[in-house]
Amino acid sequence: MTELRSSAEWRGDLKSGSGTMRVGGGVWEGVYSFPSRFEGADGGSPEEFVAAAHAGCYSMAFSNTLASAGHVPTSVRTTATVHFGPDPAGGFHISRIDLVVEADVPGIDTAAFLDHAEEAKVGCPISKLYKGAEITLAATLLS
Amino acid sequence: MTELRSSAEWRGDLKSGSGTMRVGGGVWEGVYSFPSRFEGADGGSPEEFVAAAHAGCYSMAFSNTLASAGHVPTSVRTTATVHFGPDPAGGFHISRIDLVVEADVPGIDTAAFLDHAEEAKVGCPISKLYKGAEITLAATLLS
Repeated sequence: MTELRSSAEWRGDLKSGSGTMRVGGGVWEGVYSFPSRFEGADGGSPEEFVAAAHAGCYSMAFSNTLASAGHVPTSVRTTATVHFGPDPAGGFHISRIDLVVEADVPGIDTAAFLDHAEEAKVGCPISKLYKGAEITLAATLLS
Repeated sequence: MTELRSSAEWRGDLKSGSGTMRVGGGVWEGVYSFPSRFEGADGGSPEEFVAAAHAGCYSMAFSNTLASAGHVPTSVRTTATVHFGPDPAGGFHISRIDLVVEADVPGIDTAAFLDHAEEAKVGCPISKLYKGAEITLAATLLS
């Protein structure tokens, strides 16, 4: 079992306060604020990290699934889009995450490609963590 | 509803391949690899982003809960530790996330502080997403 650690500090109230986030030992460190999280202003956003973790994990998991079946991919590119807004049950929530993947995989047929794509969506450790949201997948085989 | 988007690309198989992750529009962009994810080598790690998202969200949510009750915090500092390893059901998983928080909150009593800490743990949008893992909380009032 590996332990990964990140930290954050917030000062003040929600709208006029501000914070800093630090990823791991300092891979990234920067400011975040109500505007950077909710209004698209410059700065960090927890939800962008959520999306990056999913895109990174899924690309790696799908590549592993393909390679394990004898089809080492040239490239697997994934975009993860997090839908973040008011929760009908109160507060805010992430209701859905859309994974859109395009891959160059020499010599594979489309049916097998799509089977592996779905298998990776289910088995990716980050998908297993994100049980509070619906996860959709659209996969395209480029070659 | 706001959409937040990040992306990643992986090239090759699991152990000898390599990838890049891009957070949002480019807040951070860098490489990741099997060694950086599983063996603590330099580079990015999806699980460190998972931890940063939780630490960032929890610090902000707890501050909001405190401020809404009339106790604007001077500082709320959170460390999130992700436990990542083999899944008894197959593959890998995140089994547990530990939130450790220390806060400076003028004029609040410890019982109310701990109630708000627990309320923020439940209501934080990232806690609501991470339903696949156990989440623990240890909160300390510094002043």
